[in-house]
Amino acid sequence: MYREEIKVLDCTIRDGGLINNHYFTDEFVREAYKALSKSGIDYMEFGYRNSKELFPTKDYGAWKYCDDDKISEIIDGIESNLKISIMVDAHRVKEQTFAPCHESPVDMIRVATYVKDIDKAIDLVNRTSDLGYETTVNIMAISKESEPATVEALDQLAKTAVDVVYVVDSFGALYCEPIEYLVKLYREHLPGKEVGIHCHNNQQLAFGNTIEGIIHNANYVDGSLHGIGRGPGNCCLELLVGFLKNPKFNLSPILKFIQEHMLPLREEIEWGYIIPYMVTGILNEHPRSGIAYRQTDDKDKYAEFYEQMLEALD
Amino acid sequence: MYREEIKVLDCTIRDGGLINNHYFTDEFVREAYKALSKSGIDYMEFGYRNSKELFPTKDYGAWKYCDDDKISEIIDGIESNLKISIMVDAHRVKEQTFAPCHESPVDMIRVATYVKDIDKAIDLVNRTSDLGYETTVNIMAISKESEPATVEALDQLAKTAVDVVYVVDSFGALYCEPIEYLVKLYREHLPGKEVGIHCHNNQQLAFGNTIEGIIHNANYVDGSLHGIGRGPGNCCLELLVGFLKNPKFNLSPILKFIQEHMLPLREEIEWGYIIPYMVTGILNEHPRSGIAYRQTDDKDKYAEFYEQMLEALD
Repeated sequence: MYREEIKVLDCTIRDGGLINNHYFTDEFVREAYKALSKSGIDYMEFGYRNSKELFPTKDYGAWKYCDDDKISEIIDGIESNLKISIMVDAHRVKEQTFAPCHESPVDMIRVATYVKDIDKAIDLVNRTSDLGYETTVNIMAISKESEPATVEALDQLAKTAVDVVYVVDSFGALYCEPIEYLVKLYREHLPGKEVGIHCHNNQQLAFGNTIEGIIHNANYVDGSLHGIGRGPGNCCLELLVGFLKNPKFNLSPILKFIQEHMLPLREEIEWGYIIPYMVTGILNEHPRSGIAYRQTDDKDKYAEFYEQMLEALD
Repeated sequence: MYREEIKVLDCTIRDGGLINNHYFTDEFVREAYKALSKSGIDYMEFGYRNSKELFPTKDYGAWKYCDDDKISEIIDGIESNLKISIMVDAHRVKEQTFAPCHESPVDMIRVATYVKDIDKAIDLVNRTSDLGYETTVNIMAISKESEPATVEALDQLAKTAVDVVYVVDSFGALYCEPIEYLVKLYREHLPGKEVGIHCHNNQQLAFGNTIEGIIHNANYVDGSLHGIGRGPGNCCLELLVGFLKNPKFNLSPILKFIQEHMLPLREEIEWGYIIPYMVTGILNEHPRSGIAYRQTDDKDKYAEFYEQMLEALD
């Protein structure tokens, strides 16, 4: 698939950080930035800009906050065309500040929101787009939302300066047909804006569904290195780059980073296709119950977990 | 997806046996048969009926040959509606014999073939359907075949007694659009016959592509327990059962078998999404070079493997 408009965003540090409280070493982030730059990826998401009141700095690594100075320190001296994004939760905005874009290493602010918080998301989009940032709204947990509420949110977003609105399958619950349906719905209600797609891999569908989104003209696509991300993780960036035929992409630096950095990391923290996450995916539930179960001695009692979940939802 | 015509076939022992020379214990096969029976699966493939001249019995387990007596011994005393299939390679038929179907525990003979060997496949279909078996032809490596040769093979098969013809993505190279194209092509050229789909998971697309096949009316679908199979393995049976809504299916016995038998087995033998198989998939190549690489000390040097493959194919 070669379509010049397609932009690939790597969310390794941001979504992967949900597993390790955003404690990545500076070296890891710097090497990731180098590898992604060499591989022709369009955006790298460094993490969240979260409130230090809500998330005390003693409990989290630097990428929970993404201070401009910290990002600048990491990328200093590396030649790159890679743009930088950070994510902000619309419902967790407290004392965070944003410098004018031209004074910041950040190019894009991605606002994560539920449909119910769309007004907060729009407020943040307005503030940050006025500062010169590219902006996106990532509507989470879309598999749980009703169509009227979703359409109302999209129609509100259509009137804002937001550049991209993402279909986010937070629970890894969607099959290809609802992905097609949602991408078309977003495009219909967001004339002149781009649609993005962010998938989770509970059912090994993150890559397939991302392709489905691309086929229906989602142009902003998320992946992560070796699929790292909370629970089952995300669409593998290496698969996306193998699929996209734009000659600017180069797979080798990504594969090299995976062998040198992701394999050792996977010895320490867990992500990927594991049955409790498959179960939460097919039941269209948040992965938190699966994550909690994986911390117990019963972590591999898959049938019991499934039965418990069925009972809890009955 | 609920469509009564859909039949699910488990190929755990047959395709998984390509990793361990078909050395599964009797207990493993018997417990799999019990679990699949309880879960409402339609067919269980016990292995190959291979020539003992070509594959000496000192080198392989019982499921390389699938003697009727051996199958009968395993299933003895277990209540089940599960049908039994075995596979035969069209280009490796030597001294193998087939009893009349009513004297055999086997219900279905699946003939694996390349397009070039289609006449041998048809000969075997004719012989075994005359004996009363259901028959299928599984056209392997379809991602390498030209359309005229494929169409000629399909038109020949249309005139035979074969019940089902499978799209087999042996190299895990196909994306959803060619799957749609091939399933429609098969259906067009095989009036009155069923189309099947068998996918490999090189690019984490086995399940997504199987759904794609189902959407376009492939009614025979292959999966394996926890995706076991050569190289990256197959579509996960547990995912298929989670997707199909026919109330006859029951996920719990499958999950229980996975936790009790597949997790220990994966400590001994390797399958799944591993980068060298992703590389052979995106390059549309047989996984054998990836399998060989995984036997070396360099097995995790992914970028080097990719570069070597590019060079070899240049």
